[in-house]
Amino acid sequence: MLSEFDLIKQYFTRPKRRDASGRTVLGVGDDCALLAPTPGLQLAVSSDMLVEGRHFLAGADPYALGHKSLAVNLSDLAAMGAAPLGFTLALALPAADAAWLDGFSRGLFALADAHGCELVGGDTTKGPLNICITIFGELAPGTALRRDAAQPGDDIWISGTLGDARLALAACLNECALDPDDAALAAPRLHAPAPRVALGRLLAAGRLAHAALDISDGLVGDLGHILAASKVGAVLDVDALPAGPALARQSLELRRRFTAAGGDDYELCFTASAANREAILAAGEQSGTAVTRVGRIEAELGLRLVDATGAALALHLQGWDHFA
Amino acid sequence: MLSEFDLIKQYFTRPKRRDASGRTVLGVGDDCALLAPTPGLQLAVSSDMLVEGRHFLAGADPYALGHKSLAVNLSDLAAMGAAPLGFTLALALPAADAAWLDGFSRGLFALADAHGCELVGGDTTKGPLNICITIFGELAPGTALRRDAAQPGDDIWISGTLGDARLALAACLNECALDPDDAALAAPRLHAPAPRVALGRLLAAGRLAHAALDISDGLVGDLGHILAASKVGAVLDVDALPAGPALARQSLELRRRFTAAGGDDYELCFTASAANREAILAAGEQSGTAVTRVGRIEAELGLRLVDATGAALALHLQGWDHFA
Repeated sequence: MLSEFDLIKQYFTRPKRRDASGRTVLGVGDDCALLAPTPGLQLAVSSDMLVEGRHFLAGADPYALGHKSLAVNLSDLAAMGAAPLGFTLALALPAADAAWLDGFSRGLFALADAHGCELVGGDTTKGPLNICITIFGELAPGTALRRDAAQPGDDIWISGTLGDARLALAACLNECALDPDDAALAAPRLHAPAPRVALGRLLAAGRLAHAALDISDGLVGDLGHILAASKVGAVLDVDALPAGPALARQSLELRRRFTAAGGDDYELCFTASAANREAILAAGEQSGTAVTRVGRIEAELGLRLVDATGAALALHLQGWDHFA
Repeated sequence: MLSEFDLIKQYFTRPKRRDASGRTVLGVGDDCALLAPTPGLQLAVSSDMLVEGRHFLAGADPYALGHKSLAVNLSDLAAMGAAPLGFTLALALPAADAAWLDGFSRGLFALADAHGCELVGGDTTKGPLNICITIFGELAPGTALRRDAAQPGDDIWISGTLGDARLALAACLNECALDPDDAALAAPRLHAPAPRVALGRLLAAGRLAHAALDISDGLVGDLGHILAASKVGAVLDVDALPAGPALARQSLELRRRFTAAGGDDYELCFTASAANREAILAAGEQSGTAVTRVGRIEAELGLRLVDATGAALALHLQGWDHFA
């Protein structure tokens, strides 16, 4: 049986990286980690807690889970436009299962390394499976993409595609049948989302966008947070929403529902002046991320859904509420 | 029924404090919080996860639990000598219980306010009760009290008193009978520990101590982490360990066992040059925290327990291991 200290040593303590930037002064193993923030930059901080049966199904593949646990946090940094710095991991485990820990830690570190984001500390305890990551990033003062910064007249943009994660979940839950090719296309969107860190950093550093957030609970609900915080309204062209490749082959009704209110997309929704359209397309190109214009911010409060012809669309949609 | 957003708004969103230092640029409600670290200082970061049935008993008083959840994190900052800056809270709750949330948030904010430590963000979800706090503090480069800095010849010091938290737990678990006065004395040490932040800051800022940690899993096990990290040994005078007032009235055997390896003490154990004895007593005085010398760091590896006469003491003690 692995002890708590063996477990941390074996799976979560790594040799100092050769390319270490030197920003982590002291990592895993003391009462606190010590970081040296870059002078003059602000620190962006976010915590996400993932619970078995809520955020992932019991028996989920540990490698994918390690990836996703960090991905949802990196997505929060992306939504502010911050550069990843490091993270802490607190983990409650029913048992010290070596195979699970091996897969989880490999999935976690593969994504962490891809983003130069170092594990600096954390906690390990016994309990119902629960994964809590707190992530730190940096950005220049005044450049953060906040929810309260949307302005009437702004375009509304979406990165990547929407709805394939929800479609994969629907297939898992036997809500719909998918042919094997579509299932294979959609599954990675649910299990291994790609946080849009590079795009977010370009939008913030170039001051190209006003407001932004990452879409985790469904676009309509999440866009509502921007509208409420910015005290504005919007028109959203539901048929302009970029559907994932598997969802694109489904019925119009399912495409509308899962792009507008699917959940687990981890794409960016951002608003920007029409004057920046060319620059935003260039930022999408540079970061290898598709960007699509899907609507407009207006002074009139409320969210108005329209179809491809501009006619009002009555969709019964709801964002995700953990206590609903 | 409270929604997730109502819950965050009602219990965990507060008006900007009038005495705000301005270090929190953006708090609860966006994808990330934004902090403005003090230029030139290092950032100390720690995460602790508390699980029902492991770290606290089912049905624990929510006010005390709010206090304790933050106290154990503040204690980690104290052990590095860092000044509290802010924290994130991630919370998995079986249900949105208004009475529980009211008590928990009041206990949490009372201690946060006492230490000028602001809640900057977090996450709320449904799940088996789990409380994960990540705390941030600041300190000058080179002043952190690290575990690997003990030197042969150092005195070993303990803040406050040890063992009353373990005695209170023993009474809760019916391992021993306590008269009501003793129970009343011991209980707050288990349920509402006082993090030694002021003492830790004085020790670090004055460069009075070499190594330090906070005693959470029992002194002998925790001191072992300093010895291992510093590659030194120690002699520990078990009868010099300051017992809590309730424990002081128990048998010698229980006093030795619960002071040396009780757990949940949240006192500081630190090592310091003998030349600093007067200054350390003065720091104890200034911070209103008793400090007691209880042993000596030696070059010879291993921990040697002795009694008041200096004779070797064979105690079968063990630190806490969540997976043992």
